[in-house]
Amino acid sequence: MHTEHALPLLSPIVAGMWRMAEWNLDVAARVRWIEQALELGIHTFDHADIYGNHEVESLFGAALKAAPSLRERMRIVTKCGIRLTSAQRGVAVQHYDTSPAHVRAQVEASLRKLHVERLDLVLIHRPDYLMDATALAETFAALTDEGKVAHWGVSNHTVDQFALLDARHALRTNQVELSPLHLAALDDGTLDQAQRLGRRPMIWSPLGGGRLFTGEDAQAVRVRGVMQPMAERLGVSLATLAYAWILRHPSRPHPITGSGRIEGLREAVAALDVTLSAEDWYTIWTASTGHPVP
Amino acid sequence: MHTEHALPLLSPIVAGMWRMAEWNLDVAARVRWIEQALELGIHTFDHADIYGNHEVESLFGAALKAAPSLRERMRIVTKCGIRLTSAQRGVAVQHYDTSPAHVRAQVEASLRKLHVERLDLVLIHRPDYLMDATALAETFAALTDEGKVAHWGVSNHTVDQFALLDARHALRTNQVELSPLHLAALDDGTLDQAQRLGRRPMIWSPLGGGRLFTGEDAQAVRVRGVMQPMAERLGVSLATLAYAWILRHPSRPHPITGSGRIEGLREAVAALDVTLSAEDWYTIWTASTGHPVP
Amino acid sequence: MHTEHALPLLSPIVAGMWRMAEWNLDVAARVRWIEQALELGIHTFDHADIYGNHEVESLFGAALKAAPSLRERMRIVTKCGIRLTSAQRGVAVQHYDTSPAHVRAQVEASLRKLHVERLDLVLIHRPDYLMDATALAETFAALTDEGKVAHWGVSNHTVDQFALLDARHALRTNQVELSPLHLAALDDGTLDQAQRLGRRPMIWSPLGGGRLFTGEDAQAVRVRGVMQPMAERLGVSLATLAYAWILRHPSRPHPITGSGRIEGLREAVAALDVTLSAEDWYTIWTASTGHPVP
Repeated sequence: MHTEHALPLLSPIVAGMWRMAEWNLDVAARVRWIEQALELGIHTFDHADIYGNHEVESLFGAALKAAPSLRERMRIVTKCGIRLTSAQRGVAVQHYDTSPAHVRAQVEASLRKLHVERLDLVLIHRPDYLMDATALAETFAALTDEGKVAHWGVSNHTVDQFALLDARHALRTNQVELSPLHLAALDDGTLDQAQRLGRRPMIWSPLGGGRLFTGEDAQAVRVRGVMQPMAERLGVSLATLAYAWILRHPSRPHPITGSGRIEGLREAVAALDVTLSAEDWYTIWTASTGHPVP
Repeated sequence: MHTEHALPLLSPIVAGMWRMAEWNLDVAARVRWIEQALELGIHTFDHADIYGNHEVESLFGAALKAAPSLRERMRIVTKCGIRLTSAQRGVAVQHYDTSPAHVRAQVEASLRKLHVERLDLVLIHRPDYLMDATALAETFAALTDEGKVAHWGVSNHTVDQFALLDARHALRTNQVELSPLHLAALDDGTLDQAQRLGRRPMIWSPLGGGRLFTGEDAQAVRVRGVMQPMAERLGVSLATLAYAWILRHPSRPHPITGSGRIEGLREAVAALDVTLSAEDWYTIWTASTGHPVP
Repeated sequence: MHTEHALPLLSPIVAGMWRMAEWNLDVAARVRWIEQALELGIHTFDHADIYGNHEVESLFGAALKAAPSLRERMRIVTKCGIRLTSAQRGVAVQHYDTSPAHVRAQVEASLRKLHVERLDLVLIHRPDYLMDATALAETFAALTDEGKVAHWGVSNHTVDQFALLDARHALRTNQVELSPLHLAALDDGTLDQAQRLGRRPMIWSPLGGGRLFTGEDAQAVRVRGVMQPMAERLGVSLATLAYAWILRHPSRPHPITGSGRIEGLREAVAALDVTLSAEDWYTIWTASTGHPVP
């Protein structure tokens, strides 16, 4: 029997809630969806304050309110720091805000909307040029002391940006984009740093936002051209192969799903049983870059 | 009453002497100019051996000789390491020189030209590919021991270049370019490193070399288009707003003025009373890059 | 009289064996070639498992078998980690492999082919995205304990890639490309890191792969245009000047020759007696970039 404290912070696959508002599920269906994810071994749910135009956390929270016993079986990740353009909120130009007041207000709003007493992991969503690392770290420490947040991390931060905040408060992860169609994190030091420090990254858009399946640009066509027969040879779906390609990285990443279909979660989990050969991994890399390794 | 030792190394705004030779001030006017800067709270004066074709330090030194009591009210920064093309000096190709002999010779020349016994801060002007960090650090230590230089720093150094020399001798600052029209230091790690290490940067060309006011390129037009009405709303000049934009950065930068007009100094100092909102700051960033934040 | 243990790991100039298979030397000629290199003070020989389509180590090893007393007068460097496309080896797509099994197998093959009991330095040839630094470092330690490899390093690794593996097992060097026609390592932090950590780099392609002598592209023409008269003024060959340009770098690089001609080795060694002035060094840099230093 799982208890909240016994669960690892991140399940191998993480369920991304980004598009939950588009799934059009009523509360009972949301509860059932969460239960099915948990049954698949996906116990971490990735949120952000702004997902679904600020609505997703409330949708998820309504399910937790309806089925409170779910809470102790899961880990909740959320993010803050982006202020979307919004007439209602009086924001004319989208920007970032990592001020102590904003981070505290968003954390407390997330707690309310999610109907939980503690967030397991909160990430700074984007690197804020105006981040005062000392002030932010003090806010992290205070919210931790208050029991409102267990762990902290960042998303989309460069090596130097990560090093700055991590020097003030230990960060658990950097959530970054990686897919067979988006290789930047392999070369810009992000994943080298993650592996060096032992901070397993979270991976967003592991399927290239769907471009892997339907993109007609040259890169997508090349990548699909090698991945489709490879998936058939391995007896897995194209999506499973993409997840396996990410899971093969030695920084031990946690891919985040985007799908509302339980089958989509199942395809991600299936990748945990696939270990790509180095040659298969580089065959996909070679198709993506359009040239062989040097 | 100020004393040399009680003054901080860098005043919030630093007076840049780069163009002093063009101001056509006689000695008495130079003394008066310095006094007015001091009265505005600008007690740090930024030089380089090469400014004004090697003449600026001497012009400033003549003022100090005429009014020696100024010295204890100020901090003097200078730089060395560039060898300008010069038939007279036998330099056919402009290059860098951070050899112990050259740095020592330039420091001693700066002391003579400025009519002072000690330089408060000396910067290596540009990153020299041929810099032997150990030998240079030994020279720093020797000149410090001899009482000729109080502190050391660099200018225009990358993160790795700064880390190299800083590992041998603690550097006080990295003087870099930043303005609403020049954003590189925000993204290349320079300011992240400065904040992480607590080494407040100095900022050159905070007004984009005048392009902010008169540039007809698309970027300058966009930036002026948002800054002009913002300055009016805040009740400050365009220049003051540009300084406030820089001062808003959490690395706590020291902008360097370029103007010979006392009014130009006053516009910089006025920025110390302006605190931009994050949205205003990002509105300028957005106009400069031509796209919203991700 | 030299002994293996008294020799420095790397002689100032290192003999590159990359093209040895093309030199068409019989065993006796290979022995003589090695003796001549040693007589010139070049006691380090740079190999890789894949050089000459996997044949060079065997050619060199046959010479060592024929003249076993050479071994204690030299240091042997080799590399592994690249899997070339090869029908025979069942590799359809060129890729990298730094798995413990592959590294161990290649080290043991190099020992057999070279007819030696220990490799003095083994480098990971290219940065492998799939490198598990902990597992690789354990393999390094095991092979060191077994007496098969004395020291470890890497080649073509970025600053972050070097930092990752170096955090698990101390690396002796990063072998990178540098020449008057290829300046990237000067700017990307590689040589700053090398100097900071005191890990003298090895330099491949110091003559730009021959482009320095015969290239008709604008950069090669510009560089030759300043180097040819400079070499004449200094009384050295163009090749010697190129080696001297590299040796002038404060990271204290070890250039690797590529030539099979003993005269080619002599031209490299001659550079040890040349110390370029900073102005000469930057004159070449300026010709290479096509613009003066800032």
